[in-house]
Amino acid sequence: MKQLVARTALRALLVRGRVNSNMFTRCVSTAYVVKHEKEAEKPMLVHDCCGGFGDFNIRSEHGWRRMCSASATEKKDEKPPTMGTVKKDHNGGGSVAVPSYWGIETAKMKIARKDGSKWPWNSFMPWETHQADLSIDVKKHHVPKNIADKVAYVIVKLLRIPTDMFFQRRYGCRAMMLETVAAVPGMVGGMLLHLKSIRRFEHSGSWIKALLEEAENERMHLMTMMELVRPKWHERLLVILVQGVFFSSFFACYVASPRLAHRIVGYLEEEAIHSYTEFLKDIDDGKIENVKAPAIAIDYWGLPEDATLKDVVTVIRADEAHHRDVNHFASDIRNQGKELREAAAPIGYH
Amino acid sequence: MKQLVARTALRALLVRGRVNSNMFTRCVSTAYVVKHEKEAEKPMLVHDCCGGFGDFNIRSEHGWRRMCSASATEKKDEKPPTMGTVKKDHNGGGSVAVPSYWGIETAKMKIARKDGSKWPWNSFMPWETHQADLSIDVKKHHVPKNIADKVAYVIVKLLRIPTDMFFQRRYGCRAMMLETVAAVPGMVGGMLLHLKSIRRFEHSGSWIKALLEEAENERMHLMTMMELVRPKWHERLLVILVQGVFFSSFFACYVASPRLAHRIVGYLEEEAIHSYTEFLKDIDDGKIENVKAPAIAIDYWGLPEDATLKDVVTVIRADEAHHRDVNHFASDIRNQGKELREAAAPIGYH
Repeated sequence: MKQLVARTALRALLVRGRVNSNMFTRCVSTAYVVKHEKEAEKPMLVHDCCGGFGDFNIRSEHGWRRMCSASATEKKDEKPPTMGTVKKDHNGGGSVAVPSYWGIETAKMKIARKDGSKWPWNSFMPWETHQADLSIDVKKHHVPKNIADKVAYVIVKLLRIPTDMFFQRRYGCRAMMLETVAAVPGMVGGMLLHLKSIRRFEHSGSWIKALLEEAENERMHLMTMMELVRPKWHERLLVILVQGVFFSSFFACYVASPRLAHRIVGYLEEEAIHSYTEFLKDIDDGKIENVKAPAIAIDYWGLPEDATLKDVVTVIRADEAHHRDVNHFASDIRNQGKELREAAAPIGYH
Repeated sequence: MKQLVARTALRALLVRGRVNSNMFTRCVSTAYVVKHEKEAEKPMLVHDCCGGFGDFNIRSEHGWRRMCSASATEKKDEKPPTMGTVKKDHNGGGSVAVPSYWGIETAKMKIARKDGSKWPWNSFMPWETHQADLSIDVKKHHVPKNIADKVAYVIVKLLRIPTDMFFQRRYGCRAMMLETVAAVPGMVGGMLLHLKSIRRFEHSGSWIKALLEEAENERMHLMTMMELVRPKWHERLLVILVQGVFFSSFFACYVASPRLAHRIVGYLEEEAIHSYTEFLKDIDDGKIENVKAPAIAIDYWGLPEDATLKDVVTVIRADEAHHRDVNHFASDIRNQGKELREAAAPIGYH
């Protein structure tokens, strides 16, 4: 344990990045990374990092220097940055050089997977991976209690009719298309709360972060489904049309009634859970081949190497169940005549 | 150092939350937190946390259980959650109970400041604090090179005329009002890139995260300035009007030409740096009283207890200089006919 702790902290000091809320998963997985890096090509060893960054990104270099010495956090005694000076990486592709008048170079650290192979994703890092809580109740349903609840429920049920007609039981395609819609509400809600916060000079109670986290998670679902189902041209066209309509409608709905908007999302997530449950049934019945899980899913959810489509659909369904709870919860708060900021958001509830 | 590393990792395992990109700052500050917690009321000791969460938030409880044992990450053997059961916190305010049919309780962990006092903010946590890089060149200017650059430059210069007329040298008020505008572009850009990513089935290269980080940082500037200058009713009205106009215009501009939009933000940030430099001059000349820094600024930027307004304005100016670079960089990428995702975003460049 002590060794794990020390390795974990060393990794934390080595890596300067945004960390996903499931801290424990990160700690374990990153510890693995460090362990395997030592066996493999030592991609994250201190001198490699410093050398890898050279001096083309002075902030990174300072970052590493501070990390190496673990000295005071204030940097008044540091030399000014030599913006614009570009050096190639001498560690064999430790950085990606992009010409810029501004001297900002985006350095891709040599981050390794558990097996020592290079981290292939630039849309998320190992410390942004996500552990699904499979213990959540996927059958839970919010019984409509007031007019807003009933309106939300009817809207979602009506929306399901054309969806069922269009996709029938083609759940792979259905899931991919629905994720392009599911990633919209979190971003719209987060943005509107952000605008409200700066317009009214008031704190958000972390709800901005919670909703943006939801949007990011849904986007990762889409990136995963994309690897399994390639959209056809007419599906791409449909997505563009649907997004235009849904974004505008949801934006207007959230402005008019956040309580209704969050309830609609809560019910949409209940439908998503239903679809994924049917998806799982078809996999069990052999109607859908239980193919190998795509690499992006194995890396994002920290699934075992031999994970299959069934494992992926199971973790995605668990994520949707958490979004269902968060949105019904938000609607409950509004329903009690409170502002969301009055109840701190369930950050990391996923 | 080893002790620091161990404490840091212990804290990382204890706290389940989103971590700001300046990992090193966090590691040091959190280590301090743990150290002082031990001296103070042990707010983060394991049994306190578990007790504090009780079983009203089964995920948290599992989180702590996993943390306590530091065992395997998969949770198939965990008992199903008893959603909806609500228990009061027996640890004297270790959580904020909000009635919900959904059993999600937002538990405020007893996180302490360096001095052992309770962490008072729910809009950001110690691991979301931010260290400004004061070594950045605040005089750097992007010379307009093409039509888009010139248009952006003229727009920003024209926008400055009414601003100068309205605020003159009332920099406190000016800064507060301008931050309500400065927090908009990052959110609009991040949202549009998110929508593009899910519409086109393509990865974002972390640019969504980078722009949302910028928006969050600008919002924190506003939360800080609010503590120093209380907006009057007519200023609040002005903010609402200005936000409405600026949001719509910038949204349209970003849709039409991201290159132009990012360049405009780059130049806006150059103007912001100029304003903050004038602000600092007036503080040095004694025209503006160098009052004590507000608590939120001390906690967010990890400033010393005796920090003053001058220190706060200095770190805010450094942040703006980084946003200037990121936006000019983004505009450069677009100017080279590339998509932003083709060059990984400078995550943590602030």
